Amino acid sequence: MDCQPIVDKTYKKVLAMENSGNVASYIPELAKVDDTKFGVCLTTQNGEVFTAGDATVKFSIQSIAKVLSLSLVLSKIGDDLWKRMDFEPSGTAFNSLVQLESENGIPRNPLINAGAIVVCDIICELFDNPKKALLDYVREVSGIEDLQYSENIAHSEQQTGYRNFALANFIKSFNNIKNTCDQVTDLYFYLCSIEMTCEQLSYTFGFLANRGKQFNTGKTIVTPNQAKRINAIMQTCGFYDEAGEFAYKVGLPGKSGVGGGMVAILPGSYAIAVWSPKLNKQGNSYRGMKFLQYFTDETQDTVF
Amino acid sequence: MDCQPIVDKTYKKVLAMENSGNVASYIPELAKVDDTKFGVCLTTQNGEVFTAGDATVKFSIQSIAKVLSLSLVLSKIGDDLWKRMDFEPSGTAFNSLVQLESENGIPRNPLINAGAIVVCDIICELFDNPKKALLDYVREVSGIEDLQYSENIAHSEQQTGYRNFALANFIKSFNNIKNTCDQVTDLYFYLCSIEMTCEQLSYTFGFLANRGKQFNTGKTIVTPNQAKRINAIMQTCGFYDEAGEFAYKVGLPGKSGVGGGMVAILPGSYAIAVWSPKLNKQGNSYRGMKFLQYFTDETQDTVF
Amino acid sequence: MDCQPIVDKTYKKVLAMENSGNVASYIPELAKVDDTKFGVCLTTQNGEVFTAGDATVKFSIQSIAKVLSLSLVLSKIGDDLWKRMDFEPSGTAFNSLVQLESENGIPRNPLINAGAIVVCDIICELFDNPKKALLDYVREVSGIEDLQYSENIAHSEQQTGYRNFALANFIKSFNNIKNTCDQVTDLYFYLCSIEMTCEQLSYTFGFLANRGKQFNTGKTIVTPNQAKRINAIMQTCGFYDEAGEFAYKVGLPGKSGVGGGMVAILPGSYAIAVWSPKLNKQGNSYRGMKFLQYFTDETQDTVF
Amino acid sequence: MDCQPIVDKTYKKVLAMENSGNVASYIPELAKVDDTKFGVCLTTQNGEVFTAGDATVKFSIQSIAKVLSLSLVLSKIGDDLWKRMDFEPSGTAFNSLVQLESENGIPRNPLINAGAIVVCDIICELFDNPKKALLDYVREVSGIEDLQYSENIAHSEQQTGYRNFALANFIKSFNNIKNTCDQVTDLYFYLCSIEMTCEQLSYTFGFLANRGKQFNTGKTIVTPNQAKRINAIMQTCGFYDEAGEFAYKVGLPGKSGVGGGMVAILPGSYAIAVWSPKLNKQGNSYRGMKFLQYFTDETQDTVF
Repeated sequence: MDCQPIVDKTYKKVLAMENSGNVASYIPELAKVDDTKFGVCLTTQNGEVFTAGDATVKFSIQSIAKVLSLSLVLSKIGDDLWKRMDFEPSGTAFNSLVQLESENGIPRNPLINAGAIVVCDIICELFDNPKKALLDYVREVSGIEDLQYSENIAHSEQQTGYRNFALANFIKSFNNIKNTCDQVTDLYFYLCSIEMTCEQLSYTFGFLANRGKQFNTGKTIVTPNQAKRINAIMQTCGFYDEAGEFAYKVGLPGKSGVGGGMVAILPGSYAIAVWSPKLNKQGNSYRGMKFLQYFTDETQDTVF
Repeated sequence: MDCQPIVDKTYKKVLAMENSGNVASYIPELAKVDDTKFGVCLTTQNGEVFTAGDATVKFSIQSIAKVLSLSLVLSKIGDDLWKRMDFEPSGTAFNSLVQLESENGIPRNPLINAGAIVVCDIICELFDNPKKALLDYVREVSGIEDLQYSENIAHSEQQTGYRNFALANFIKSFNNIKNTCDQVTDLYFYLCSIEMTCEQLSYTFGFLANRGKQFNTGKTIVTPNQAKRINAIMQTCGFYDEAGEFAYKVGLPGKSGVGGGMVAILPGSYAIAVWSPKLNKQGNSYRGMKFLQYFTDETQDTVF
Repeated sequence: MDCQPIVDKTYKKVLAMENSGNVASYIPELAKVDDTKFGVCLTTQNGEVFTAGDATVKFSIQSIAKVLSLSLVLSKIGDDLWKRMDFEPSGTAFNSLVQLESENGIPRNPLINAGAIVVCDIICELFDNPKKALLDYVREVSGIEDLQYSENIAHSEQQTGYRNFALANFIKSFNNIKNTCDQVTDLYFYLCSIEMTCEQLSYTFGFLANRGKQFNTGKTIVTPNQAKRINAIMQTCGFYDEAGEFAYKVGLPGKSGVGGGMVAILPGSYAIAVWSPKLNKQGNSYRGMKFLQYFTDETQDTVF
Repeated sequence: MDCQPIVDKTYKKVLAMENSGNVASYIPELAKVDDTKFGVCLTTQNGEVFTAGDATVKFSIQSIAKVLSLSLVLSKIGDDLWKRMDFEPSGTAFNSLVQLESENGIPRNPLINAGAIVVCDIICELFDNPKKALLDYVREVSGIEDLQYSENIAHSEQQTGYRNFALANFIKSFNNIKNTCDQVTDLYFYLCSIEMTCEQLSYTFGFLANRGKQFNTGKTIVTPNQAKRINAIMQTCGFYDEAGEFAYKVGLPGKSGVGGGMVAILPGSYAIAVWSPKLNKQGNSYRGMKFLQYFTDETQDTVF
């Protein structure tokens, strides 16, 4: 099916609206991004690619990368992961410490900071050189052979990452982190530093729309069951305090990042990435939400 | 497609397992139910019906009815509903008052008690005889012309409903209930008293698998968009503290009740109801969870 | 010792300051009070009385009366009271439901609403006519033979008492209320409706400065140990979110009410009552706090 | 007055009871202490000293030292301290992070871990060599010229201090810590490592019973007002979750530590230290609580 007309039409519609919200400013690298950037890319199981705007400009995917660390760990240790964390919506802010206190250091799910930090701890347990292993994995899944961490962003995160250091130490006080907090947060900050374009991001997430197999190559990234489960987690936990809002308005599993990126997938069909740096109050891309809402209203695509 | 073999096979598999958990005992009417009962019914968009076990025995659908009060109100006032409540997962127990305190009497979603109570308040605002209006609506959607509230159950609920009275009064202290608390909780207790069989329940929920149109008659119950949105809410909020678990293991939108009933839908295809009174620790039917997990593993049905 | 000069001096000092804050407005009876009223009365163990301003004008003592319901129950059942509630500071708002949820319906202390409601439940258990029994008790302790409840205030409270109904029902859901919620809240609203003048209030609280014996008559109201303990509870829990502030700045045990009344005692010496209707953000009398702070700075009176 | 007979009698009474509870075991240095140790020392304003049992054996005073860091900072910057923290009871565990999250990194009071960490940050701001400055101060107040930090205990604390690192980083994420978290927690761990005997501890706290002036020397440690206020804070916040219990049963301001030490003061009269390593469920010395309760019952000493 030719999605280009709907992509174009929706892109124009959102472009014509006020570009509300604020760029994430907690680290300089994110604050200095051009806030008029706006890109879209939809990649289908059949290899079609539909783009609009700044679809080939790199941006910091931030928390979107937590889906990739999750898929790496899930493919390695399977359901043993759930001895270390849960997969329930948190109902609280992404960096909250409150629930950890009453739930003894067991994060609610792998997509909030606490959970992603424990996932990083597991990666540190699994690999001698965890930073390299993670990068190799993301290169493989994304097909970007020369992908690098952004040292600038990783260092910036590290310099102001008190909340994440607090999370790591808090979890370790409950004995749910095995390596040193420095090792674990180091990997975590590098994970969050990954940059991709919309084109690359939609291709990367293709395996979740394809029962675990990479688009084009058909290579197995995760089992069909694991793909289903990652999608279920994205649906219930992928959008911070707006998981319900996104399920309600878009109706597709997906994940967002504070860099203004957003990715969603229609199982059996496509992955779509949107990027626009200004965030709404819940920390999700303002234009990204609008685009995906209008786009799925138009196409009637939904898992529900 | 002939689902009967898989229904039968899964039924036998679960029947052979230990029947764990406990029957809800907070009211005598629920406590005295036969805990060996176990019924299943799957009804398809094409009118096929596949059953197993006690599929034609009536049981108290309890909180499952909250989806019907939601659909009634949504069909009447549309998105105005969201001025009175949110549609986010709560991350806390179904009858918790904690979030209401910090969120000024705005319930997290219409499927927890607090939200369903506000939905009942809206029904009291919309109709002169709200109890009759709600019953008429459920009769219409279910096609059960002689459906009655269970006076026994409603009275029992009323006699021990301190937590729900507390919720109603608490919400009213924030001015988010317009009628008297007695009127509202009265309707609420009657809503929870509705009884159906698995056959009736799966037919009733058919409209959510059919873009808002009733199975067989094709009558519009809600708009396609509203059907999508109700499904999204069921997916993220339908299973108390196990919303993530259900999304992860079953992968279909659905709703459970403390009577041991459970209903799930595959959009564009079918609705399935399971009933077995013993509940797991999270308050969902122990066998219901097992059945739906094994059944969807077998059929590979999932929205993800 | 002649306290009159310091009372006068402090009274003038506070009178000259801006009269900040807001009169409690949640019921009309409190809202319509003259907010320029300002009275003080200090009564000593030796029978001396020092007053300033509107010391003989009646006002609604509101939550200050919770000390009297506590002393009644403590004198009747002693430490058995603590099977039903705790005596720790709450760290949360006076009408919060949050802690009750995690602490299974056991109020933190008898001076927050939840605790006072359970105290009222106990009074309902102890007496055939609890409303009369409580009134008789307050008449005895205060020496005001013709004291009456204020029907106006009690009715007003009842009409808008949703939060207190919520508390009562919530506690009853944990089985920590034995009578009906209506009986208990009825008594509670009458308790809060009592009116006294500063002169009467300071005399009434004299027994807590006198090892449990009424000023003048020497009649035993509570044992010395119970007097000590009530004072300890007032010190740690008597001023809502400002218990620490009051201990820090005034350094005497005491209790405040949203009617703008405030009473404090110096063990072995005197009781002092202040009344001024405008409340600070924490719900304590703005001028009352100022007066007691300056007065004790001047006299160097403190328990610490 | 000769207190020796009552000290002896009470000591024997408590010694004859079961020695319940558990020694703190989170660091080896505390775990290996002899749990039968039991010492008492009461030092009066007039220079009298009454002891019983192991009154001259050194033990880790742990959190009791937080009163000394508080008095140091209060004597240096006065009420400016309260821009950085509050002085209200917390109502939660001593090492809780929950309140910090909703209260934006402002600790509830200087005697819980969070508050003591901010006090340490202020000491780091005030002095070039904060560790030496603090030690010099404690030497001066205690009169122990050769007092040393216990390197063993400080290192042990550091090795397992994840919860405290979490607190420091969390507070820093709210910008309420100015130095590095490592500097601040380092000082904090040394603060907690101080050791004294009961004799030394009761003398050290004498200034709080003496309007801010050191026993014997009469040297001013803090102003009378500051002494009053420190006592008020100890009364409302000095005993973790048992502040109310201690106020109720003992009725004196005081502070406890997980080393099993406990100190209390009667303003204008004496300071008393008790040590017995086994802790009750709230983390206060089991025998310490018993001793002070029985002792004050006997002497009728109380601030209330």
